[in-house]
Amino acid sequence: MTYADRIAGLKSSAIREILKVTSNPEIISFAGGLPAPELFPLNELADVAQKVFSKFESAVLQYSVTEGIGPLREKIARSLDPDGDALGVDNILITQGSQQGLDLVSKLFIDKGTVVLTENPSYLGALQSFLLFQAEIRPVASDEDGIVLEKLAEVCGRGPAALLYAMPNFQNPTGISIARERRPGLLQIVRQHDVMVVEDDPYGELIFEGERPPSLLALGGTRNVIRLGSFSKTIAPGLRIAYVAADEEIIHKLAVIKQGTDLQTNTFGQYLVNEYLENGRHEEHLRLLRKTYGFRRDCMIEAMQRHFPSSVWRNRPSGGMFLWVRLPEGRDARDLLARCLERKVAFVPGQEFFPDGSGSNTIRLNYSNASPGNIEVGIRRMGEAMKEMGM
Amino acid sequence: MTYADRIAGLKSSAIREILKVTSNPEIISFAGGLPAPELFPLNELADVAQKVFSKFESAVLQYSVTEGIGPLREKIARSLDPDGDALGVDNILITQGSQQGLDLVSKLFIDKGTVVLTENPSYLGALQSFLLFQAEIRPVASDEDGIVLEKLAEVCGRGPAALLYAMPNFQNPTGISIARERRPGLLQIVRQHDVMVVEDDPYGELIFEGERPPSLLALGGTRNVIRLGSFSKTIAPGLRIAYVAADEEIIHKLAVIKQGTDLQTNTFGQYLVNEYLENGRHEEHLRLLRKTYGFRRDCMIEAMQRHFPSSVWRNRPSGGMFLWVRLPEGRDARDLLARCLERKVAFVPGQEFFPDGSGSNTIRLNYSNASPGNIEVGIRRMGEAMKEMGM
Repeated sequence: MTYADRIAGLKSSAIREILKVTSNPEIISFAGGLPAPELFPLNELADVAQKVFSKFESAVLQYSVTEGIGPLREKIARSLDPDGDALGVDNILITQGSQQGLDLVSKLFIDKGTVVLTENPSYLGALQSFLLFQAEIRPVASDEDGIVLEKLAEVCGRGPAALLYAMPNFQNPTGISIARERRPGLLQIVRQHDVMVVEDDPYGELIFEGERPPSLLALGGTRNVIRLGSFSKTIAPGLRIAYVAADEEIIHKLAVIKQGTDLQTNTFGQYLVNEYLENGRHEEHLRLLRKTYGFRRDCMIEAMQRHFPSSVWRNRPSGGMFLWVRLPEGRDARDLLARCLERKVAFVPGQEFFPDGSGSNTIRLNYSNASPGNIEVGIRRMGEAMKEMGM
Repeated sequence: MTYADRIAGLKSSAIREILKVTSNPEIISFAGGLPAPELFPLNELADVAQKVFSKFESAVLQYSVTEGIGPLREKIARSLDPDGDALGVDNILITQGSQQGLDLVSKLFIDKGTVVLTENPSYLGALQSFLLFQAEIRPVASDEDGIVLEKLAEVCGRGPAALLYAMPNFQNPTGISIARERRPGLLQIVRQHDVMVVEDDPYGELIFEGERPPSLLALGGTRNVIRLGSFSKTIAPGLRIAYVAADEEIIHKLAVIKQGTDLQTNTFGQYLVNEYLENGRHEEHLRLLRKTYGFRRDCMIEAMQRHFPSSVWRNRPSGGMFLWVRLPEGRDARDLLARCLERKVAFVPGQEFFPDGSGSNTIRLNYSNASPGNIEVGIRRMGEAMKEMGM
């Protein structure tokens, strides 16, 4: 029995291992990337479930088209392009979470050795997907305003790249967004070098303050951008309903690939999300999420001000689910993690997310899935461990 | 913009194109592979949906582990191995339909040029999946008792092959099963040549008469066999709940691959299927399916006896959803299809399913998704078209 070549580089992510530890309920975990389950619109979805069973009957249980059910695709197209000038149903493919969008895009674009540009750090699940197809990942330096355009131009100049993978809003792991002013320049560079942007935006709706900048798709159009969007963070992740918005030819090819991948996204979940969106309580629910997550971010920052030594840096994202922390140069976040686990607090060392292996002194902290009380206690314990290490 | 190499061979299946035509409700279609929606346990699943919402609350909407929820994996292991000698939860991975099982197995085993053996004809979705990973497909001749062992040994002798893909029971497209007597010999040959069997068995439960032979997994064990099973044909396809049963190491690797593919199968569907199986009405439902589909098969065969010319051959599968028809040598089923579409009847020409391009005079007919009345009318019209063509 011989495995395929791609398996040689395959490893379970360290995050997965950390998450196993945190299934112990005594541990306060800032490690996962989970939305707050107590905020799921549980009763509303239970009602909607009954409604779709009685309204559409067996259709909600039967095979349906690979592209996804029409009304949901139409709603997504309208949400991205209210006037209907640029996007129609044929620009939308429903996927089994955005992770599947990444898998399908990888299948369409990546051969062994194909160059994929990413932010540095970047979303681990995307890196895993690209590496399964044996892409060559080229990280591009990012700062507090996102990807650095001079660096992007420089890396593009080094040779052909197929894709630039970027999370425009409240990126996982850092919570950083690509600044509004950088977006047109970014698109100009990729256009020049014939690189397709994969804009992955699961957190964009979770904005706490300020105005959401136009998406890369809205700015660059389907010639330059493939957009991945998701209902995992705004409704519920267990339904696995997300979408790709792209050029019609690309959507058609991705649909043919999806046929061979899983035939179609689960029908019931599509009807459920479609009916829920029609009910019109979605906007109200988004306001609740923004308010609650914004409050938890503030709790975490205030706790840090009380408990972290001043040598430790952290940012203040204006949306999403994550905060980013930097320990003093030369410190290893994994050493801190070991001490924190003894104190029953968990987080993810940031190095995991850097394709270039840097970032050993960085930390990703999730605030969406912890109560304000646990945030206070967890951050205090982290601060104690930091001080114990002489930071 | 450059697509990956694998896209050069990508084409939408002809079946998909035929199915588009058959969305016209005036057409009597034997073309699809759909279960009968009027038999879905709709009310029961609607009740179960409410029950899982109130019993498990937000857990049914949250992220869960990639491998699938424990109780469902445990039930599947017990259904395959009641004594628990050979299989435990760690041998089971829940997948998004069996089509995803094929995708994950392809990722684990197939490099460009890797040899995959298949029956001839074989399931189109499997061929699509293998071709996406640029496998070299080597079809092995099959007869009315399934794959021909002498031919299998001969093809194995020609050079290394990674996988043998086979549907042991009521195969799609022919409805043929691998005879009980052939199964040990098949396993001996693959063992000798270090070929892993992928046993894809979505139809095994739909047995109308006789006794179901032991599965290849039961006979050969996890060293030689990876088994794909599904609830799509026995509960409902729109839930997309299926499984892989295999060696623990393989399941672990497939789970890591699934992380990068779609993170996990939809949580809600897993809870729904698990709770439905616990209710204990599943066996009763299977009896209803067997009885109804068996009756429809009989209706189709009796209609053929009345309306088809005697020069046209057909088989009589003892289970599943499909019948296989062979026109006289030299006749092309696509010509018949054109005449049938004029008469508002659709089917799938069998050639599609032959990796070696043969079978131009064969036809796949689905009987599970047509009423006895439509079966009579549709088969009569097909017979008229055959006679018009001088068969």
